[in-house]
Amino acid sequence: MATEKVASWAVNLSYSSLSAEVVQAAVSSFYNWVGCAIGGATHPTTTTAYEALTPFFGKPTSTLLGLKGARTDASHAALINGIASHVHDYDDTHLATIIHPTGPVASALFAQSEAIGTVKGEDFILALVAGIEAECKLGMGVWPKHYDIGWHITSTVGSIGAAVAVGKLLKLQTVPMQHAISIAATQVTGLREMFGTDTKSFHVGRAAQNGLLAAVLASRGYTGSLQAIEAPRGWARVVSVSNTVDDEIASLGSQWEIARNAFKPFPCGIVVHPVIDGCIQLHRELQADCIAADAIERAEVRVHPLVLELTGKKTPQDGLQAKFSVYHGGAIGLVFGKAGPAQYEDKVVQSTEIVTVRDKISATADDSLGADETEITLFLKNGKTVVKHVKHAVGSVQVPMTTAQLEDKFVDQVSLVLGADGAKSASEACWALQSSQSVASLAEGL
Amino acid sequence: MATEKVASWAVNLSYSSLSAEVVQAAVSSFYNWVGCAIGGATHPTTTTAYEALTPFFGKPTSTLLGLKGARTDASHAALINGIASHVHDYDDTHLATIIHPTGPVASALFAQSEAIGTVKGEDFILALVAGIEAECKLGMGVWPKHYDIGWHITSTVGSIGAAVAVGKLLKLQTVPMQHAISIAATQVTGLREMFGTDTKSFHVGRAAQNGLLAAVLASRGYTGSLQAIEAPRGWARVVSVSNTVDDEIASLGSQWEIARNAFKPFPCGIVVHPVIDGCIQLHRELQADCIAADAIERAEVRVHPLVLELTGKKTPQDGLQAKFSVYHGGAIGLVFGKAGPAQYEDKVVQSTEIVTVRDKISATADDSLGADETEITLFLKNGKTVVKHVKHAVGSVQVPMTTAQLEDKFVDQVSLVLGADGAKSASEACWALQSSQSVASLAEGL
Repeated sequence: MATEKVASWAVNLSYSSLSAEVVQAAVSSFYNWVGCAIGGATHPTTTTAYEALTPFFGKPTSTLLGLKGARTDASHAALINGIASHVHDYDDTHLATIIHPTGPVASALFAQSEAIGTVKGEDFILALVAGIEAECKLGMGVWPKHYDIGWHITSTVGSIGAAVAVGKLLKLQTVPMQHAISIAATQVTGLREMFGTDTKSFHVGRAAQNGLLAAVLASRGYTGSLQAIEAPRGWARVVSVSNTVDDEIASLGSQWEIARNAFKPFPCGIVVHPVIDGCIQLHRELQADCIAADAIERAEVRVHPLVLELTGKKTPQDGLQAKFSVYHGGAIGLVFGKAGPAQYEDKVVQSTEIVTVRDKISATADDSLGADETEITLFLKNGKTVVKHVKHAVGSVQVPMTTAQLEDKFVDQVSLVLGADGAKSASEACWALQSSQSVASLAEGL
Repeated sequence: MATEKVASWAVNLSYSSLSAEVVQAAVSSFYNWVGCAIGGATHPTTTTAYEALTPFFGKPTSTLLGLKGARTDASHAALINGIASHVHDYDDTHLATIIHPTGPVASALFAQSEAIGTVKGEDFILALVAGIEAECKLGMGVWPKHYDIGWHITSTVGSIGAAVAVGKLLKLQTVPMQHAISIAATQVTGLREMFGTDTKSFHVGRAAQNGLLAAVLASRGYTGSLQAIEAPRGWARVVSVSNTVDDEIASLGSQWEIARNAFKPFPCGIVVHPVIDGCIQLHRELQADCIAADAIERAEVRVHPLVLELTGKKTPQDGLQAKFSVYHGGAIGLVFGKAGPAQYEDKVVQSTEIVTVRDKISATADDSLGADETEITLFLKNGKTVVKHVKHAVGSVQVPMTTAQLEDKFVDQVSLVLGADGAKSASEACWALQSSQSVASLAEGL
């Protein structure tokens, strides 16, 4: 009954049943997604996909964010905005499952809203919430075995979330919504083996496209299985060896997953964040001692074992590899006191200063530490030694990003593409989503 | 090393290394695919997809087979021709794995060949062979566990086969070909749970689109994992609990899978074929006794247990359900002496005559029989009893379809859409693939 339950819940969800907290979480999620998509628009992974697929582009109904007013059909816009939104590993995180929930869902929804042309902000928010709740609950239902086996959970459940969101936008009834879920569920996109390559962010865009396609087909009567999720050979059993879907979806509408969505302060794997946070704090506190390559003798960091397993790359060669290097993360924190997209550009990763500092950092796994915790000991050439303990990194549940930090992050990314004025007006337009009379008009302003 | 080995084998394959038998198998596979795609073009599953996705269509470079000269971008043409080619369950079968190999590969290849515009028949054949060999060898490497778990193997490996074929057409070198395989492998499309719904044939079209997209992205430098197939969390281990890929790909170029491709004489699950074959033989032999509903007392069929497990539907309500009914298969064989698409139309499935005969047929599982074997005992009202034993059904390895039978099948399907003259000229054009100077010109003739 899971397929029917999710479909029926989403179909019956009304805007008036959303609390102010849920609406705010949806607006923040959308806001962060736009910033990331614009910030990622000029990344080679995005522009290569854009150029390669141009021969297939259809009627230009939908904006390619950050690409100077370029437009294409809704399906390709979903794909390319989805890639852009994930390419810096800077998007949001549903911490219970490490799903990045908004990328697949909003990329599909935004593109289709523009194609429709008359979607109000409130309807967009409602569909976004429906999609993200379905996505995260189903993800929780197969977590962690699904991820352990090797699936990139963001895109595998993202396809389904995108289908539910676009299905809600298209006002599907329960049975067609079940078919939409089904057509999305059968497109299981995303192997973790692709991490560290262009294909990782492709997953997010493709999930958006999968879900959009599924909802559009279902809206015209296309059929899948009505028991796609729970059947003996259905999605849950094929993609995971554990299945608690029924338990998780029981709390649809009472425990809101979007309210637990966190935003990344730094554009890299979340396990590196404590080290970056601590190093930035050290940079700020020790500026008087001139934290530069010359001033540092060495640094020792103690981290949760997962940090070295996932991000233990000692000598990253470019920006993409640097996202998987706790050493690079520590170095940019110490040297720049900042870790934005600019600090993950290839030229920074390859610069003598950063390479020098990076090589002075050693890391040790310590399973007494939490995943969002670290202890850094910095030895300076002047003989001074400083210890910095980070109990919970910024961006964690305990220390969420503030609205001001989220805005800094947005402007930081968007300015690189649209300039300072463009970034400011884009920020205002996105914060005003709730009162927008037309998402298409909002898109024009970006 | 599997990813590199498959890529490098495909990249280095030359037309001169293909035997006459392999070339003939490729031409027959293409020929059968065109017939199925034209025959499936007017099926509601195909036309619904066509209509639903029209808003996304791009520049019309590529033919939608059987849709009166309609054209769209190569990606959507791959999707829609792929759906059409599988919708009647009438396409080819690699019997060792029950992969239907040509649908995903040819649908991608044909669409992209037209978009390129200058592809010769020989280059098309070479790419088709490369794609089908890669597809079937990888399929054999995860068969049967992959299928048992619940994956629709035709589309899961079809994505990879399509990528290799289009990659070959685009003259990718080994490393980009590895990336193409990788980007295709990460899009694992197709759950068996969708069998009996529109989404089953969607899988074939989507696999074609997945592979085309992968090859086009890789041709522009997009990266995936170079060890996509064999890595610890690579494709083979994620999608199957058994993995003999290395063993299977060792025979690339010596044991040709395309030469083992079989063509279906009837548009339904292959396990029903022995019963249909036997009933058609009875119809021909007993025409003097007037095999009609009134003349038949009852019929008993003994079949391999799998037949009832997969196609035991007693009272199919429409053409799609009838494909999973050994009773319908027997009835049309007895009454019409024929089992083509026309005998699977809804109105035939619902007709009083067929329902009456169907209800007179009983089936018993007998595990002493082979999967392509049956024994039918027909009791006539005139007191006569006839027993028909089919050792190997037509279309099996032992009793392959003849060229004449393949041509009858083609004309039978294509006439319904293009008329008798159109079918005849289409048949001639497709048989002449090898000497074609331009696949795009050949397509215009369809």
